[in-house]
Amino acid sequence: MSRYWSDIVQHLTPYVPGEQPPLANPVKLNANENPYPPSPRVAEAIRRALGDSGETLRLYPDSSARKLRETVAAHHGISADQVFVGNGSDEVLAHVFQALLKHDKPILFPDITYSFYPTYARLYDVAYQTVAVDDAFAIRVDDYLVPNGGVLIANPNAPAGRALPLSEIERLVAKSPESVVVIDEAYVDFGAQSAVSLIEKYANLLIVQTMSKARSLAGIRVGLALGDARLIDALNRVKDSFNSYPLDRLAQAAAQAAYEDDAWFRASCAKVIASRERVSAGLAELGFVVVPSATNFVLASHPAHDAGQLAERLREREIFVRHFKLPRIDAYLRITIGTDAECDALLGALRTYVR
Amino acid sequence: MSRYWSDIVQHLTPYVPGEQPPLANPVKLNANENPYPPSPRVAEAIRRALGDSGETLRLYPDSSARKLRETVAAHHGISADQVFVGNGSDEVLAHVFQALLKHDKPILFPDITYSFYPTYARLYDVAYQTVAVDDAFAIRVDDYLVPNGGVLIANPNAPAGRALPLSEIERLVAKSPESVVVIDEAYVDFGAQSAVSLIEKYANLLIVQTMSKARSLAGIRVGLALGDARLIDALNRVKDSFNSYPLDRLAQAAAQAAYEDDAWFRASCAKVIASRERVSAGLAELGFVVVPSATNFVLASHPAHDAGQLAERLREREIFVRHFKLPRIDAYLRITIGTDAECDALLGALRTYVR
Repeated sequence: MSRYWSDIVQHLTPYVPGEQPPLANPVKLNANENPYPPSPRVAEAIRRALGDSGETLRLYPDSSARKLRETVAAHHGISADQVFVGNGSDEVLAHVFQALLKHDKPILFPDITYSFYPTYARLYDVAYQTVAVDDAFAIRVDDYLVPNGGVLIANPNAPAGRALPLSEIERLVAKSPESVVVIDEAYVDFGAQSAVSLIEKYANLLIVQTMSKARSLAGIRVGLALGDARLIDALNRVKDSFNSYPLDRLAQAAAQAAYEDDAWFRASCAKVIASRERVSAGLAELGFVVVPSATNFVLASHPAHDAGQLAERLREREIFVRHFKLPRIDAYLRITIGTDAECDALLGALRTYVR
Repeated sequence: MSRYWSDIVQHLTPYVPGEQPPLANPVKLNANENPYPPSPRVAEAIRRALGDSGETLRLYPDSSARKLRETVAAHHGISADQVFVGNGSDEVLAHVFQALLKHDKPILFPDITYSFYPTYARLYDVAYQTVAVDDAFAIRVDDYLVPNGGVLIANPNAPAGRALPLSEIERLVAKSPESVVVIDEAYVDFGAQSAVSLIEKYANLLIVQTMSKARSLAGIRVGLALGDARLIDALNRVKDSFNSYPLDRLAQAAAQAAYEDDAWFRASCAKVIASRERVSAGLAELGFVVVPSATNFVLASHPAHDAGQLAERLREREIFVRHFKLPRIDAYLRITIGTDAECDALLGALRTYVR
C-alpha cells in the first residue's frame, strides 16, 4: 500500500496463474497446457519472420494484424472485420470487460468458472452477480434470462469441464437481445460445439477463443474475439487507446502458421480427447468422482481423500495439479491431460495413495 | 456506435500510429524506428528459445519475466523488484495511468508531447491539465510545481526532441513529494541523461523506458518501468488483474539478449546521433528551422513551405515522415533519423522542393 497508488489498486485481487515449477522435467498438469507441440510450420514461420539477423525486429509489427485476422476469418468463413486479436485471450477478455460489459445493470457469470472474471470486474469497476451452477456443475440457461448488463459464460466451463449444447447457447443469445452475450470458448476444440456459426445471425454474440490450449501456443500469447463488426469495433477502440501494437512480429507469424495447419491441430485435439477418456476411466476406477469433461482437463474428487493433501502428495513426486481453495470445488483436483507417460505417472502415483 | 458499447467507448479518441506503407522499400522515417538491426545475439537467443521444433511454445512463459527483470536490474545497478516489464512501453504507460495517476487532482503533462497521453487519460477517466511548453518547445519545471495528481514528462520530449538536464528532473521530483512523477525515457539513450540514478533516493519517481527505439526491437514489444518497489508493486497488481502473461517466451529471450550486448547498443546509438547531427545541419542549410534534438528524430519547419504539402511531396517519392495536424506543431515535420542512404534520400528530395 502506498499513497501514490490509485484507489482501484487497493481493491484489486490479482489472479494467480498455475505455478511454473523450476524443475527439469516436472509432470506439469496444472495450467491446462497442451502436452503436444504446435505444428512444425509454426517454428518455420517464426524463423522466416526473424530472418538470419533479426533485421526486421527493428520495425513495428502491423498494428492491425491484418494477415492473421484474414487467416482466422477464412478459417471460420467470416470476414476480417468480425475478428479481433490480442495478446492472449486474457488481454482480449480484459478489453471485453471495459468495452462491452460495463453498463448500469450487473453482468452475470457462473459462480464456478474461470476465476479471472471477478478480477476483471474489480479492475474496471463492473458490477456483477454470480449465478450458481447446479450440483453437477451444469449451467442452466434459464437462470440468465433476467435483466442484466451482459452475460459471460465459458463453454465448456472451467474448471468443471462441462459443455452446453449449441442449441442452449443459441437460446440464451436469442432471448437476450438487450445484452451482449460473451461465450469464452478457450476449450471448445476438445469436445464442445462452437457458436461461431451464430455470429452472422446475432449482433449481440461475442466469442472469445485462445491459441494457448488446442493450438499449443500458450508461450506465444494470442487470443481472439469473433463477433459482429460493431462489437469488434468497440474492442479496437479500446485496444487503440491502450496499446497500438499488442502482437509482436513473431507472434503474428506463428499464429497464422498454426491456423494454416488444420490437420495437425485436429490430430492433436484427437490425441488429447482419447487421453482424457482414458484418464477419466482410470480415475473412476480408483474411486474418484469425475465430472464429464469436454476440455483438456478433468475435475475429480475422491470421497475418502482430502484434495489439498492429494495435491501435496503428487507435488512431492513432481506431479503438479491444480487445487482451488474455493467454495464448492475445494474437494476437487483439476488435472490437465498430459502425454500418455504423464497420464500414467499421475494414475500410478494416485493409485499408491488411494488404495 | 452501438447500444452494446460501454459508455467509455463512445468517448475514446484512439491513438493513430505512424503509417506502415505496404511497399517493398519505403524510406520509412515516420515511426522513430531504429535504422540499424538489433544485436545478432537477439536472433540467436530467439532461435535457442524456439528450439528445433517450437516444442516449448506449448508452455506458458514466466508470468513474472524474472530473468529479464534481473538482467535489466543488473544493467542499471538496481534490484529486480524495482523493475516492471510489459508488452511495449505503451502497455506499461497504460498501466501507469490506471495504477498510479488516477487521483482527485488532475495530472499534468506538456501540451506538446506524446499524443497517446490524453488518450490514456480518457480511457481511464483520469483528469488532466496540459502545461504549455515555451516557444522553443522547452519544458519549464516551475510550471509543474503546483498542486496536482501526478506529473508525466517525456525526457527527451516528443515530438520536439528537447531534453531537460538531470538536475531539472531531480528538482521536479524533489519538490513534488505528494505526487508520482513519471519520466518517459523512450528516447533517452540518444542524448539525454537518464534519471535511473535517482530511483533509490525518491520513492515518487517512476521511469518508463522502451526497447523499441535505441535497442532496435520495435517488432518484439518490450517496455519497462523502473522505480521504488511500492510503485512497481502497484503496476504488478494491475498487470496481474489484466493479463498474467504479457510477454511471450521469445520476447523475453530477445529482450534479455539485447541487454547483454551493451557494445552493440552503444555503437548503434552513436551512429544514429552522428546522423542526426548531419541531418540537422543539412536541413538548416536548406533553410529549415530545426529544434535541437536529443532523440532519433528531428522536428523541422520551413518558413516558405507548408509542412503538410512537403510531407505529401516526400510521400510521392516513397519517403514517409510524420506531420501532426495539431496546434503549435502543424508547421513542422517530424523526421526519424534513418541510415546514411535514407538521410541522403530525404535531404536530396527536400533540396528539389525548397530550392
